[in-house]
Amino acid sequence: MTLPSLTYDAATDRPREECGVFGVRGARDAVLLTALGLHALQHRGQESCGVATHDGARFYTERHMGLVGENFAGADTAARLPGTASIGHVRYSTQGATVLRNVQPLYADVRGGGMAVAHNGNLTNSRSLRDELVANGAIFQSTSDTEVILQLAAQSKRAKSAQRFLDSLKQIEGAFALVALVNDKLIGARDPHGIRPLIIGDLDGANVLASETCALDMIGASFVREVEPGEAVIFSEDGIESKRFAPEHRARPCAFEYIYFARPDSVIGGISVYETRKAMGRRLYKDAPAEVDVIVPVPDSGVPAALGYAEAAGVPFDLGIIRGHFAGRTFIQPTQAKRDLGVRRKHSANAAALRGKRVLLVDDSIVRGTTSRKIVQMVRDAGAKEVHFRSACPPITHPDFYGIDMPMRQELISSSMNTEEIARTLGADSLGFLSLDGLYEAILGEARDEERPQLSDHYFTGTYPTRLRDHDSALSDKDRQLSFLVEA
Amino acid sequence: MTLPSLTYDAATDRPREECGVFGVRGARDAVLLTALGLHALQHRGQESCGVATHDGARFYTERHMGLVGENFAGADTAARLPGTASIGHVRYSTQGATVLRNVQPLYADVRGGGMAVAHNGNLTNSRSLRDELVANGAIFQSTSDTEVILQLAAQSKRAKSAQRFLDSLKQIEGAFALVALVNDKLIGARDPHGIRPLIIGDLDGANVLASETCALDMIGASFVREVEPGEAVIFSEDGIESKRFAPEHRARPCAFEYIYFARPDSVIGGISVYETRKAMGRRLYKDAPAEVDVIVPVPDSGVPAALGYAEAAGVPFDLGIIRGHFAGRTFIQPTQAKRDLGVRRKHSANAAALRGKRVLLVDDSIVRGTTSRKIVQMVRDAGAKEVHFRSACPPITHPDFYGIDMPMRQELISSSMNTEEIARTLGADSLGFLSLDGLYEAILGEARDEERPQLSDHYFTGTYPTRLRDHDSALSDKDRQLSFLVEA
Amino acid sequence: MTLPSLTYDAATDRPREECGVFGVRGARDAVLLTALGLHALQHRGQESCGVATHDGARFYTERHMGLVGENFAGADTAARLPGTASIGHVRYSTQGATVLRNVQPLYADVRGGGMAVAHNGNLTNSRSLRDELVANGAIFQSTSDTEVILQLAAQSKRAKSAQRFLDSLKQIEGAFALVALVNDKLIGARDPHGIRPLIIGDLDGANVLASETCALDMIGASFVREVEPGEAVIFSEDGIESKRFAPEHRARPCAFEYIYFARPDSVIGGISVYETRKAMGRRLYKDAPAEVDVIVPVPDSGVPAALGYAEAAGVPFDLGIIRGHFAGRTFIQPTQAKRDLGVRRKHSANAAALRGKRVLLVDDSIVRGTTSRKIVQMVRDAGAKEVHFRSACPPITHPDFYGIDMPMRQELISSSMNTEEIARTLGADSLGFLSLDGLYEAILGEARDEERPQLSDHYFTGTYPTRLRDHDSALSDKDRQLSFLVEA
Amino acid sequence: MTLPSLTYDAATDRPREECGVFGVRGARDAVLLTALGLHALQHRGQESCGVATHDGARFYTERHMGLVGENFAGADTAARLPGTASIGHVRYSTQGATVLRNVQPLYADVRGGGMAVAHNGNLTNSRSLRDELVANGAIFQSTSDTEVILQLAAQSKRAKSAQRFLDSLKQIEGAFALVALVNDKLIGARDPHGIRPLIIGDLDGANVLASETCALDMIGASFVREVEPGEAVIFSEDGIESKRFAPEHRARPCAFEYIYFARPDSVIGGISVYETRKAMGRRLYKDAPAEVDVIVPVPDSGVPAALGYAEAAGVPFDLGIIRGHFAGRTFIQPTQAKRDLGVRRKHSANAAALRGKRVLLVDDSIVRGTTSRKIVQMVRDAGAKEVHFRSACPPITHPDFYGIDMPMRQELISSSMNTEEIARTLGADSLGFLSLDGLYEAILGEARDEERPQLSDHYFTGTYPTRLRDHDSALSDKDRQLSFLVEA
Repeated sequence: MTLPSLTYDAATDRPREECGVFGVRGARDAVLLTALGLHALQHRGQESCGVATHDGARFYTERHMGLVGENFAGADTAARLPGTASIGHVRYSTQGATVLRNVQPLYADVRGGGMAVAHNGNLTNSRSLRDELVANGAIFQSTSDTEVILQLAAQSKRAKSAQRFLDSLKQIEGAFALVALVNDKLIGARDPHGIRPLIIGDLDGANVLASETCALDMIGASFVREVEPGEAVIFSEDGIESKRFAPEHRARPCAFEYIYFARPDSVIGGISVYETRKAMGRRLYKDAPAEVDVIVPVPDSGVPAALGYAEAAGVPFDLGIIRGHFAGRTFIQPTQAKRDLGVRRKHSANAAALRGKRVLLVDDSIVRGTTSRKIVQMVRDAGAKEVHFRSACPPITHPDFYGIDMPMRQELISSSMNTEEIARTLGADSLGFLSLDGLYEAILGEARDEERPQLSDHYFTGTYPTRLRDHDSALSDKDRQLSFLVEA
Repeated sequence: MTLPSLTYDAATDRPREECGVFGVRGARDAVLLTALGLHALQHRGQESCGVATHDGARFYTERHMGLVGENFAGADTAARLPGTASIGHVRYSTQGATVLRNVQPLYADVRGGGMAVAHNGNLTNSRSLRDELVANGAIFQSTSDTEVILQLAAQSKRAKSAQRFLDSLKQIEGAFALVALVNDKLIGARDPHGIRPLIIGDLDGANVLASETCALDMIGASFVREVEPGEAVIFSEDGIESKRFAPEHRARPCAFEYIYFARPDSVIGGISVYETRKAMGRRLYKDAPAEVDVIVPVPDSGVPAALGYAEAAGVPFDLGIIRGHFAGRTFIQPTQAKRDLGVRRKHSANAAALRGKRVLLVDDSIVRGTTSRKIVQMVRDAGAKEVHFRSACPPITHPDFYGIDMPMRQELISSSMNTEEIARTLGADSLGFLSLDGLYEAILGEARDEERPQLSDHYFTGTYPTRLRDHDSALSDKDRQLSFLVEA
Repeated sequence: MTLPSLTYDAATDRPREECGVFGVRGARDAVLLTALGLHALQHRGQESCGVATHDGARFYTERHMGLVGENFAGADTAARLPGTASIGHVRYSTQGATVLRNVQPLYADVRGGGMAVAHNGNLTNSRSLRDELVANGAIFQSTSDTEVILQLAAQSKRAKSAQRFLDSLKQIEGAFALVALVNDKLIGARDPHGIRPLIIGDLDGANVLASETCALDMIGASFVREVEPGEAVIFSEDGIESKRFAPEHRARPCAFEYIYFARPDSVIGGISVYETRKAMGRRLYKDAPAEVDVIVPVPDSGVPAALGYAEAAGVPFDLGIIRGHFAGRTFIQPTQAKRDLGVRRKHSANAAALRGKRVLLVDDSIVRGTTSRKIVQMVRDAGAKEVHFRSACPPITHPDFYGIDMPMRQELISSSMNTEEIARTLGADSLGFLSLDGLYEAILGEARDEERPQLSDHYFTGTYPTRLRDHDSALSDKDRQLSFLVEA
Repeated sequence: MTLPSLTYDAATDRPREECGVFGVRGARDAVLLTALGLHALQHRGQESCGVATHDGARFYTERHMGLVGENFAGADTAARLPGTASIGHVRYSTQGATVLRNVQPLYADVRGGGMAVAHNGNLTNSRSLRDELVANGAIFQSTSDTEVILQLAAQSKRAKSAQRFLDSLKQIEGAFALVALVNDKLIGARDPHGIRPLIIGDLDGANVLASETCALDMIGASFVREVEPGEAVIFSEDGIESKRFAPEHRARPCAFEYIYFARPDSVIGGISVYETRKAMGRRLYKDAPAEVDVIVPVPDSGVPAALGYAEAAGVPFDLGIIRGHFAGRTFIQPTQAKRDLGVRRKHSANAAALRGKRVLLVDDSIVRGTTSRKIVQMVRDAGAKEVHFRSACPPITHPDFYGIDMPMRQELISSSMNTEEIARTLGADSLGFLSLDGLYEAILGEARDEERPQLSDHYFTGTYPTRLRDHDSALSDKDRQLSFLVEA
């Protein structure tokens, strides 16, 4: 679906990645590698997980709510899901009811065989396409935009299944990193702008696809290259084939992969995520210095930037906030409990590191500011003399339409307030953001190309890498339902 | 699917009804009436149950394994499934893994709204139609032949949803009693031969559809009439409309509804099932008399015929076999246990009524003869001096292709043995069957019309009421798979 | 607990048996025989079931809610519960919350080993004993009176475990049929009046204990004898030992075992339950004749008496009421449904057998009369010209304290109304009961010995076979709690 | 049980805390505060959790496998577990089958009311006491040594429940921090040596007990004082009473609370755990310096010591190892996956911070060395030039008998190897440990008192604070079973 959903993680005020994908072909018990690969990508989605396998003749699929380790770590996993080719998917977490029919990979029997698809990203013309498909007699099983890809392939008149799948890719717009099993072929494809990441790996001759390099490290596979923007790579018994379904573009990866989503030990576009984050911290000190006694990260995502800031500032780094490892669901607030428990359930102040000090907190970003405000208060309550706040990315002023779960524009605190107003709202003694130039320099070591920006940076600029067809036409029709079915 | 499945109830050697259907429109909390109606039809299927409702704008559906009372009797049922129109379905029981995606009603979003269908019967050209639909780009969610109906409707070019649904009915062959919700319309339809039953009822102005009259009795509705063969009745806010989708035929109902499937207190075609069964018993005495001391029914289905037989014979009726009410699944056979436990788990001999007597057992039918043999032995073990066996229907020599779960021809004991041989196999002192004439007379009070038989009696005659398109073309291709997906 | 609980089956207005017990020693995979034996006794309790086994060194136990076939029929049953000795228990069904800690067999580690006990009946001095035990330092795990037996044994100073168990039996009062595993010994014991049944069987040298003979039939074991009132039989590697723990008494079995509880194919005290019930029906005709067209049983328990009545009256027997086999839980009553659905959910009128006739209904008993009233109405609604009602036992005027779940005295319709008033309440054209003399003659073939009644017949006479110690002392203290713990 | 169990966390090679306890009295919906307090103590045990409440008249209790947030965060928690007094317990995690009957708090009905107890620690004379109790007629429900406390209290002849509870405390030996509800009283008690922590807090007049101060912070309660060694504090409507059940001793807290178990933001004995750990790191540098490029903690427990070490060494601190947040259960190892996955499932190397560097790893301790070896290898595989390893506590040479789940002596790597041998085993370029003096100085700022050590430091010294009665007598009888029952 094209519009930001309601599943944004309000509890931590962090955007959420929609998904991670993984695929492998040519390996015994492919599902076991897939399970490990997905486990390494679990940070990209904790709501649900699924895999599909192909044993040369038939498909097997399982889709579940919950974590990979809860569903695909059991001793019978390989027996349940046999085959030497497999794809898998992890998906973000929601508070509310979840609809299992939307959990991926989606599978369809089509003319000439079966097709399973797992998708990271979001299509910006899926509604329009869906309308045409339904008018043409298609019956949708889900409200997922991924099914549009399958239905387009089913209706293609091309002779071969893989061709029909490529036909489908030519019609979709937006952000997508796809892994698919089309009969015994494993296919990976990335949208024309390369917004979402997708890489190719090798494990003793078995072909691997994954959202991030950390999934390769997990299984001991080596990195081969990134899938190119607008490229589909097809792994089959005939070897590897590369097909372009869109003209060549320079990749324009999502800046938030570097800022927050990707695992720090991953490498994207040849650039270490961890090093990038430390560089953002170092540059943040330049953009927004402060005279303080201690640099404290908001754990865990603020840690690398805080280390970089501390290094640049020559001020001690310390763990003034302890992250709880058992966050779980929200507890009922007892009437006796003073102050807000929401933040304490996940973080606690380490008074020993804070008392009497001028503290500078470093977080990766500020979205709505609600959690930041509580953290500032908690640190002050623990005895900090001053509390300064720094965001290791520029002010977020625009929503995303490419698969990131972020609040609507009016809820983004930076869309309506300036730095000073936000500082006041957070209760911070000072506030600072990384500059847009700083962001580019920390990631790419070069300035923003104003004509053809090298990153998808619409969060900070409002410049979107693609047209937003559904969104533009649907502005007055936001909640037009995709299905007449209300499922329990 | 068109071919007899493996789910025939080998444990009791009884054929199984595939399904029961129910629908209601114009009543508050329609789902509650549906739940009760399905409960009254539970004898027609115990494997799974499902309902769909429509609240004027949206559809709600739930499908579950297990009994109606386990799934739709809870206090929150009406809240979970709101609306004034509802359909429901019960389905037969299998031992093996069941595929929830085949449980009915099936629902589809189609152009112009939603469509939910529940189906009792079996299509004899569903494979052929499915092949064409898939070639045309349709993606099937299930292997159920019911989905063919939905896909045909989705691909129809007619303007209105109800018209598209009727378009679909014109293309399908075989046996079907359907209830459907097409947006806010409730539709009932019966195949051109009226093989499976479907009746119309009225509950204070609300329209009701059901497989049997016992479902009307359960909710206090009155009987209006049967849906005609080849007729679709459409209940909407504009009233009731009757549409023919096939030329007029005399109904040719399935003889087994009278013999075994229908609940004894139901009335089919104006004829009491219970009285018919007693009449079969009376006629059975004429067809196959015996000099015995006591008439003992094989419970529960043999009871009415045994009462009729006893009455005609002037011999006492007694409960020489007790039926256990907690049959459940098969227990592991202990090494110490002598004799077969399979039958004892469900039936036990009441020695007090059998010892030293010449016993005549009456059962509704003999399919493979396996259970009958065990029962004869059990009765003999309990001290009976003689054990005679009578079947209240003619010898079953041919399989069914209209939704009855019966073994393949080679397993039907009467297809390869004559009465004497079967008697020997069962270990019975004598064996007798109701004659085909006797069957017609007991049910209809008239002889069989050899030109145009008044019943679907292919079980006994091999004369099928329709062509068997899939079957004829698929004889050499029996297990061609419908899906490449192997589901857990 | 000694006081009638709230779990009486108000929906059918029938009393409920508390439990059935089974034990076996000296057989491979003893648990499999126990599972089958309990399955045959399932009519004595459907709420919960449990087994304990002993493998020569250790005990294994499992206790579950639900039916035996749902819990102990799986292929891994013997592996989960190994051993050559086993006992088991089935327990009545309740609507409300159930406390698993009360499910039997109860197990305790005691000095010198382990002890598992399953109990059918009810102790009438358990509260008094419990108070003493707690004062002495005992910690009770349950509120079950069965635990009193274990705690008494644990506190006994006798040297051997079996002796300590017998010590315990000397102190308890009331009705009890016990099976126990005391280390590797299997023990069966029956209260001094033999109120609840317990029999000994043999299966190729393995020793068997069971509540009823139908459990022996199930596993193919032969009947040896009944356990005597006040006798404990001990099966061990040293053979069979019989110990008296109370002076010899003539057995005084519960009349309701014959009337309703026991399975019709069981034999109690050498008397066929089925034949007894038919004899009650024949005698009922003498005690309460009527001029009618058809005799209709209230299924299933009224069937044998109705057959007897019909035979004596020379009037046809017919199935005017059909029993539903899928009763399950209570459905929500739709606002549209006319009339009471409670009874229709379980029974339906078979109009074909009733219309225009003078109908005589035979039921085994009338407790509160609520269901009888609905059945009379349902039969009249179905077109019966007259509806007469007969109870195959005398008027029930007094409650039970020996393990039968029956309502309090004030709810027993016969405790406050005479036959004519009850007939009016039921809406019956006439009403009749079996006489007390008739009951004795049908069961025993002899008159009641007024000095020393041969049956526990307090239901009809108020003459209890034992003192009611807890009840007498607790009348002013009915709901004194046994535990301070409220369990979910 | 007194002997180290098999539940030691072999996957991470870290000892495990047995439990955490919490109690509160005088607060509305006490269970909600208990749930939050236990959530803050979740690091002390993740296997199971339980609470008991008292509403002035009755007790309520629930015990579950899993996390607090999974079981006691729901909206109905307060309704399920009402009352103004509550205690709770969290317990360590095991891989194998768990026995719910051992989950705490344990509850017992005793003379004069109810008693619920939650226990952190381990009794060293529980077997001896259990034997005596069983000989005296006690029936144990569990194999937990906590039940010994209840049984002793039940058998005490003292008049009042609280007195009986104190009677019990006088007889037990070992380590224990107990919270109990004895009718409406809340009691906290700590063993004579104060081995396990227990503190008193206040929340607007409500009395609180908890294992650590972080639980007070969570609910906003203030710290009052520690419970003294050998002291029982009784909170009732009469106020607070302090009772000694053992002569005064100086507390001798477990050193491992400071080293590893306690949450870093807790304060024990007036000392910040976090500061202590940093001090250990600083001192570790003195005890075992190295010339390296980067200090890398083994996350998460090695972080504070690594910060201290880096600070003292003047070498950069960096996150060279990333901790996965979704460890979950062990995955099946695919045949293709190279190298050991066990460690990669939980940790991954951050090559960007390691490549080409001389790396010094700091961990809190080395137990068996198995995980340390894998981590060294992983860091080397990621490109480190040198890998040095430092343990922030002295060599562990002796097992624990006070509730810490640690391997037997022969598995402790430091019990059989010297530093050089261990370094070789780990594959480290150098290895160093904190000295025992360094430990005392970092924690207490003073040297070890050799006569009367200020800490329970037997791990490093073999000097146990109490006699080990069961252990001494049971050495030849290690696995004597506590129960004859084998539970599923």
